[in-house]
Amino acid sequence: MKNLLATALRYETGTLLVLDQHLLPHCEQWLVCDSVETMVSMIQRLQIRGAPIIGIGAALLVAHLLERGRGRDELLEAVRILREARPTAVNLMFCMDRMAEALQQDNWQQATITCAEHLFDQDKILCQAMAGHGAALINENDHILTHCNAGSLATAGVGTAIGVITEAWRLKKNISVWVGETRPLLQGGRLTAWEMEKAGIPYHIICDNMAASLMKAGRVDKIFVGADRIVANGDFANKVGTYNLAVLAFHHGIPFYVVAPHTTVDVSCETGDDIPIEQRSRSEVMGVKGSFGEVSWSPADARAYNPAFDVTPATLVSAWVLDSGVYDQSDIFNGALARLG
Amino acid sequence: MKNLLATALRYETGTLLVLDQHLLPHCEQWLVCDSVETMVSMIQRLQIRGAPIIGIGAALLVAHLLERGRGRDELLEAVRILREARPTAVNLMFCMDRMAEALQQDNWQQATITCAEHLFDQDKILCQAMAGHGAALINENDHILTHCNAGSLATAGVGTAIGVITEAWRLKKNISVWVGETRPLLQGGRLTAWEMEKAGIPYHIICDNMAASLMKAGRVDKIFVGADRIVANGDFANKVGTYNLAVLAFHHGIPFYVVAPHTTVDVSCETGDDIPIEQRSRSEVMGVKGSFGEVSWSPADARAYNPAFDVTPATLVSAWVLDSGVYDQSDIFNGALARLG
Repeated sequence: MKNLLATALRYETGTLLVLDQHLLPHCEQWLVCDSVETMVSMIQRLQIRGAPIIGIGAALLVAHLLERGRGRDELLEAVRILREARPTAVNLMFCMDRMAEALQQDNWQQATITCAEHLFDQDKILCQAMAGHGAALINENDHILTHCNAGSLATAGVGTAIGVITEAWRLKKNISVWVGETRPLLQGGRLTAWEMEKAGIPYHIICDNMAASLMKAGRVDKIFVGADRIVANGDFANKVGTYNLAVLAFHHGIPFYVVAPHTTVDVSCETGDDIPIEQRSRSEVMGVKGSFGEVSWSPADARAYNPAFDVTPATLVSAWVLDSGVYDQSDIFNGALARLG
Repeated sequence: MKNLLATALRYETGTLLVLDQHLLPHCEQWLVCDSVETMVSMIQRLQIRGAPIIGIGAALLVAHLLERGRGRDELLEAVRILREARPTAVNLMFCMDRMAEALQQDNWQQATITCAEHLFDQDKILCQAMAGHGAALINENDHILTHCNAGSLATAGVGTAIGVITEAWRLKKNISVWVGETRPLLQGGRLTAWEMEKAGIPYHIICDNMAASLMKAGRVDKIFVGADRIVANGDFANKVGTYNLAVLAFHHGIPFYVVAPHTTVDVSCETGDDIPIEQRSRSEVMGVKGSFGEVSWSPADARAYNPAFDVTPATLVSAWVLDSGVYDQSDIFNGALARLG
């Protein structure tokens, strides 16, 4: 497999490396990944996270294991296990299904390597396409709110929602960004803030519950978020808190955009109700943990509820920014997504 | 001054004691408060917090300093300084204005002691009245969402919003509570969770951004919150995130109640736009700090925005639960609050 370089994933001279996102922003440590168990653990612990990159990372691992001499049956089993590592983001399933198809071909060895390389390279291209479409929606002096991290850490390329923002900045638009911290795992306050620092884009971190008053004060012009799964009717799952922002945007008349590649579209789900939502440990709500340390502030016996994602109905979305273009509600209701799938 | 006992404030045999709420829930430590500087610091550091209790605590301190032999002018200066310790909650100003009036009387020494005792005793009575009015709004099997801590830690009595909840529980209503953690200072995840544990009421902590999906799933029946200032037209300020919940409740058709004593009403402000909102340090958004430890997860140079409160317009409130009764929008728009003031 050729060398492949992304912000948080690398394949270099026969070694697969993952930037440990659990340790960001304070520590940039690359981890070697050379087994299914390691990749599953990394995905579940969010050392590698972001809908597109977990699919691509899993694909590169399968190709890497092939190069290390594993047989077709073992690789198909690897694909099966990796496919189930996290239930909500469909990109992982998309990538594993492509890899399984490659493994079934007559020239399966070459096909599998080529497929992994293609998924990686394609994601870069998809990101650039989304960035171009989305940046055209951004005006001079816009204050843009984003949630979680849908950036270069989450993809092989420039990101989805953050790719749009960095592209607008590259085009010399004078923008500033409100970064929602994204409790419980703080992907905004840690990762998006880190990306904004690297890009030199003006930003402020806010607690998630502060977005409403900013909107009321007229200090949010547009909202861009990523997605873990967009279904046939345009509903989509994304990091918990996204639906909250969509309701607020609707109430305040603020444009709300979701940005994702077609690999995030799952037309086999008809509505958002069909998307499985991962429930995670109560300990994540009772405190925080990372390279910065570990604290728990709640009573030791506290009960907590911790859905990792929520579902935003299509009726609250102003437009869907895909690699193939920008779709409004009328496009979506007329089956634009079904035609992609 | 007679002995006065509350959950987080005590006057016992000549000593004024404050339960350090910064250290809850893991450590219950009482601090002696015997100077204006100490009380101002405790208020600003949220060692004593909650709109009613900071006013009462300041009043007890003034009476205590009188008993220690301070003169009228010095006490009036103390009142002036304490009155400005935090800008948003009006109860502090209400209590300091009552104390200043007492200090102006001919029998100012007795009047000042009596005034402080009355403010304390009255708050207990007001809490019980609100609890009774509010509990009547709660049905069997209700799932109730609350934000921040408007409980016995925040008042001399059973609390405002939480007083309603504990009263419903005392009346054997089978309820459960969603506790919004309330970033950045976690008054929900630390303090309300502690109060729910003490009361034995079933509860789950959630991150603030999870409330929306719970509402969409039909898992929130009612919302009760406290207030730091209710103005003439019914708008009110409360801990940041309250307005967020009000918008969500409105969108989902969920009753949204604010609970506060008449000491929280400020008819000199016409609308919520006139309420000053305290801005606090960026470090509170970049991490957490308490008896549990101190961590900072954001890039060291990150910028952050940290308003401590937000304002909810009267149009989003289902009813105002005051000590004098329950008022609906038509009552408020017909001047019910102005008549209280």
